[in-house]
Amino acid sequence: MDRALQLAALGQGRTSPNPMVGAVVLSADGTLVGEGFHAAAGQPHAEVGALAQAGARARGGTLLVTLEPCCHHGRTPPCSEAVIAAGIRRVVVAMEDPDPRVAGGGLARLRQAGVEVIGGVRQAQALELNRAFVHRVLNGRPLGLLKWGMSLDGRTALPSGQSQWITGPAARDWVHRLRARCDAVIVGGGTVRADNPLLTSRGRRQPEPLRVVLSRQLELPGLPMQLWNQAQARTLVAHGPEAPPQRRDALAALGVETLELSACEPRPLLEALAGRGCNQVLWECGPSLAAAALRQGCVQRLAAVIAPRLLGGAAARTPLGDLELADLAEARLWTGQQLSRCGPDLLWELEAPEPDP
Amino acid sequence: MDRALQLAALGQGRTSPNPMVGAVVLSADGTLVGEGFHAAAGQPHAEVGALAQAGARARGGTLLVTLEPCCHHGRTPPCSEAVIAAGIRRVVVAMEDPDPRVAGGGLARLRQAGVEVIGGVRQAQALELNRAFVHRVLNGRPLGLLKWGMSLDGRTALPSGQSQWITGPAARDWVHRLRARCDAVIVGGGTVRADNPLLTSRGRRQPEPLRVVLSRQLELPGLPMQLWNQAQARTLVAHGPEAPPQRRDALAALGVETLELSACEPRPLLEALAGRGCNQVLWECGPSLAAAALRQGCVQRLAAVIAPRLLGGAAARTPLGDLELADLAEARLWTGQQLSRCGPDLLWELEAPEPDP
Repeated sequence: MDRALQLAALGQGRTSPNPMVGAVVLSADGTLVGEGFHAAAGQPHAEVGALAQAGARARGGTLLVTLEPCCHHGRTPPCSEAVIAAGIRRVVVAMEDPDPRVAGGGLARLRQAGVEVIGGVRQAQALELNRAFVHRVLNGRPLGLLKWGMSLDGRTALPSGQSQWITGPAARDWVHRLRARCDAVIVGGGTVRADNPLLTSRGRRQPEPLRVVLSRQLELPGLPMQLWNQAQARTLVAHGPEAPPQRRDALAALGVETLELSACEPRPLLEALAGRGCNQVLWECGPSLAAAALRQGCVQRLAAVIAPRLLGGAAARTPLGDLELADLAEARLWTGQQLSRCGPDLLWELEAPEPDP
Repeated sequence: MDRALQLAALGQGRTSPNPMVGAVVLSADGTLVGEGFHAAAGQPHAEVGALAQAGARARGGTLLVTLEPCCHHGRTPPCSEAVIAAGIRRVVVAMEDPDPRVAGGGLARLRQAGVEVIGGVRQAQALELNRAFVHRVLNGRPLGLLKWGMSLDGRTALPSGQSQWITGPAARDWVHRLRARCDAVIVGGGTVRADNPLLTSRGRRQPEPLRVVLSRQLELPGLPMQLWNQAQARTLVAHGPEAPPQRRDALAALGVETLELSACEPRPLLEALAGRGCNQVLWECGPSLAAAALRQGCVQRLAAVIAPRLLGGAAARTPLGDLELADLAEARLWTGQQLSRCGPDLLWELEAPEPDP
């Protein structure tokens, strides 16, 4: 199963809206005869690849797979039928598929066909690997990551507004790798106006993550913003119902896709992105939008890059706008032991506190 | 010499204005026959204690001492004469004494008397141990430590002003231990008004570090502020020439010492504290005074305690006021690998960048 988990992780950043899955086939005498992983949505599932590699040697053998084989017709036929057809005698799975179209149905189908089923092997690792997929399936919204870079005194810009660069090259390289694990990267209009960001993984993910701008009134600059160049990566500008149509048309004329939301808020945006197959999104926005995303439960993980320098200045930008806390006791502890160095900078990765019951 | 350094460190927090010093005496055949350390100003120097313990067995032996023996009459007679009188044949020192009254004169006196002198053994460790003393002797001001506790988004209070407690009990315990290594703890009037702090080491240092308030106009609350209670620890209120005499008299009536500075600024304050024998001071002040201390070169070390919680709020207090930086390139990198956990909180200790040449 450890090998199957390794195989699954090869699909990192490329399988959405599907999960990452890895599979291993052992012949009846225990020899490894097939390996497979899910490489991208629309491509063969991991089990099918592993069974194809094994061929006739799968008969009477064992399939180890990180996720319950599916039992529904999606873009590919049900894997449970392929397993039965291959003559597999025993299936070991790490976790059930939370997708309501499967949800134990794949394992039931296998048992019904006389296949021995063993579940829950390396379940914690499998859940962690596909945490974003599971979150999206259960909540209807992608898993939200929030990232910021700041000085040791909590500043994201000088009082003059200058912000490039507070953190060092190693931290920026780490951000590119982080983007490669995400399906979309989200900023607000203020970040577009202030920083003219590129927001790509610098080629580490193909295709690049969708670049998303959330803008109430579409008060955005015209050319030559890097986000309006659709050659390297696609950009989606989401806006509220109050956005003037002529601004929407101006963006469309630049080749930029626009999307009207019921309200210009993080939650409706994430629901729309889930509908487009995003399992995991990265918030790289300014203080107001970041605070709104936190208040609306749209952030499950946080990564703060802290540079060992001091900027000062009461008027200087900070990572977060108002969280509407009345008392310090409401500021609950985030958890996470993930502490590392990026060159001179410090990287602290944390998990959101459990929501109040 | 490692043993002598260990002995020296036993005086931590108690020797100012003197350095920490440890000494070991080996007899002519190499047996350890005496140990000593400097326990407090006015008490015997380390060499004298070690020689007394060794007695006649010191004759023909070796003295290992972390700092050059003195050659001047202070509160005690010159140690170099005691070494010569004890018949020591060889002296090994870790570093010269930067005090201009010594500055190599002690070693010269020993050589002149026919004692073999070996210098520079474990010099880096000895310099680190007595960095505060060396800094005060060379600069005329104590070494400045700046400490703050903040949330992960760089806040030192909620927008409402609530600040107790952002960091956890382990971090507060660490602050008490930090205070025990300092000769004075400095706050501004704002911190007194907002937090009514106690500012002691909770008995870890005897006497407690001097509690210092820097206040331009002496607009300070009357009783029952914890700082006005002089039973546990002494308080000094330093002020500018513009402070109204009746406020100074009101403090004096509470038994609180006051001190008029030429200007209500960090530098004149530290010069006054050096004159009172402080080698190391701790800035535990609010953003304006902390920024002033940084701008005036009164901070050599920084300790930031970062709590894994988010406070938010554009109006919420931050660690530092304006540093008057025009460009990010002026915000030079602080150095330091000293990263540790205090319960859930993170402690990052850093060294100031070298001043511009």
